[in-house]
Amino acid sequence: MEPLRVGIVGFGNLGKAVETSLLQQPDMTLAGVFSRRQIPHPQYRPIHTLDEKQVEVDVLLLCGGSAKDLPLQTPHLAQRYNVVDSFDTHALMRQHFEATHRAASHGRKVALLAAGWDPGLFSMMRCLFESVLPNGQSASFWGPGISQGHSDALRQLPGVKDARQYTLPNEEALSAAREGKPVSKAHQRLCYVVPEEGAHLEQLVHSIKTLPYYFAGYETQVVFISQEELLEKHAEMPQAGHVIRKGSTQDAREHLLEFSLKLSNNPAFTASVLTACARATCRLHQQGATGAYTLLDIPLASLSPSSPEELRQRLV
Amino acid sequence: MEPLRVGIVGFGNLGKAVETSLLQQPDMTLAGVFSRRQIPHPQYRPIHTLDEKQVEVDVLLLCGGSAKDLPLQTPHLAQRYNVVDSFDTHALMRQHFEATHRAASHGRKVALLAAGWDPGLFSMMRCLFESVLPNGQSASFWGPGISQGHSDALRQLPGVKDARQYTLPNEEALSAAREGKPVSKAHQRLCYVVPEEGAHLEQLVHSIKTLPYYFAGYETQVVFISQEELLEKHAEMPQAGHVIRKGSTQDAREHLLEFSLKLSNNPAFTASVLTACARATCRLHQQGATGAYTLLDIPLASLSPSSPEELRQRLV
Repeated sequence: MEPLRVGIVGFGNLGKAVETSLLQQPDMTLAGVFSRRQIPHPQYRPIHTLDEKQVEVDVLLLCGGSAKDLPLQTPHLAQRYNVVDSFDTHALMRQHFEATHRAASHGRKVALLAAGWDPGLFSMMRCLFESVLPNGQSASFWGPGISQGHSDALRQLPGVKDARQYTLPNEEALSAAREGKPVSKAHQRLCYVVPEEGAHLEQLVHSIKTLPYYFAGYETQVVFISQEELLEKHAEMPQAGHVIRKGSTQDAREHLLEFSLKLSNNPAFTASVLTACARATCRLHQQGATGAYTLLDIPLASLSPSSPEELRQRLV
Repeated sequence: MEPLRVGIVGFGNLGKAVETSLLQQPDMTLAGVFSRRQIPHPQYRPIHTLDEKQVEVDVLLLCGGSAKDLPLQTPHLAQRYNVVDSFDTHALMRQHFEATHRAASHGRKVALLAAGWDPGLFSMMRCLFESVLPNGQSASFWGPGISQGHSDALRQLPGVKDARQYTLPNEEALSAAREGKPVSKAHQRLCYVVPEEGAHLEQLVHSIKTLPYYFAGYETQVVFISQEELLEKHAEMPQAGHVIRKGSTQDAREHLLEFSLKLSNNPAFTASVLTACARATCRLHQQGATGAYTLLDIPLASLSPSSPEELRQRLV
């Protein structure tokens, strides 16, 4: 069988990780790296090439950001190409899905949206767990891991030169979730901050701890460190998390389901999920499907390079 | 929308648990309990009724055993009805799948096979985990929980009046799996045995520990107890288990995925999975699908009573 021709759109952390991830796939080949800015890559092509002609790719993995790139790029490119994205702005999910669904349906293409670990694997677990244990309580926990959004929020405060924010699940909250008890104060926030020279540290701690939405109301710890130490010790992008559901069957018997992951590098793992999704997207399209989908809408077997027969033999 | 009419075939532990599980489902109604032997249930109907006329059910949940009932029942009933079973004899899975696929395809019905937690949820996790982390090592662990097969094997030994066998994961093996190291001696076996009067206990321990396939080669502990104690302390059917995959992306970064469950009662939870599968089976059939499927072949959303829009809003 011909390998799937996969295009990468956007070549930041995620795009680069997708390129290495493709090397692990027996059935895929890199068909081009599309970017707005010129990059030193033998397969670089300007992004507008995708509009000017029908480029020969089976699927595009969109590796831009959810804030600015994907809301426009995904529906635009879904008119002419099968696409996968990792859009993760929950509040705008419906709008993004509907716009992409219209575009992909019109172009008779398939768009698989919100792929990654959350949304993505976590969404799948939440759906599976509540379906098989309808009477129960689910909880999601994130961390220990760096939150880009919270790190950015810190960096925008006056007096902050650089910063990394780790979100950590609260151990008591984890235990409560496993016992089916209500979960409060699920997360703690640990901020490593490089202050500007001459910054008033006490005042800075106060502005951080009271920053609305990001830190106010959370158990927040602020640790000041040097730029050197930040770069040395906090350059990696680890992540972790749990989806937990405690539920009972009608006979009052209790059951606990838990999914957890621990990633040494968030973009590297997200890229690996996107790459598996490339396969599922092409299969949906080959079967005649069109429009937008999420990981809740696809059979798990479609993520695998193995045949259904082989999967049943090895895994069922 | 009309509720799904669900029939139960076989009314042992699993069938009874399915009946209570249906009470948790907003969109299902019990349409009959079909059994070979007469049972005191207002909706009891002899099993041969299913052959004599087309009974008005949307799906049958087959609650018989994998050893004797399902190999014949599933393909037979799949000719005329949508069915779900929890067939779990791995060595005969292919044969069972193919026979049922032929029958269901011919009858234009859908059969969802091997539903439960293993095979079932564990199969799904194994497929998902290796698809998103192709370079890695998976391991499955069972227990602490009662193994029916091993308990039966004990009961068949001369000198044994009654017995329960608990399988327990070996903690060192669990740690090895989480570190991606080779797993050996993954399980321990703990046997509670009620000896026949006058049985030679030392000899009995020897026959147990050397029983080929079941106990030989395992770390096995035998505890003799009275019938009263067995019934009092070991009447429940708890189960637990883990699916673990440690893998690395091409950049040598390591990632860990783990699914675990802890069930206070194995048939109660298995029933709850079968019931969710009833919904997925009917949806597949409504969409025009025919033939045999496993949980690897269905979208997760099809297990849920919620609409795709609601699932995206709440869970993605």
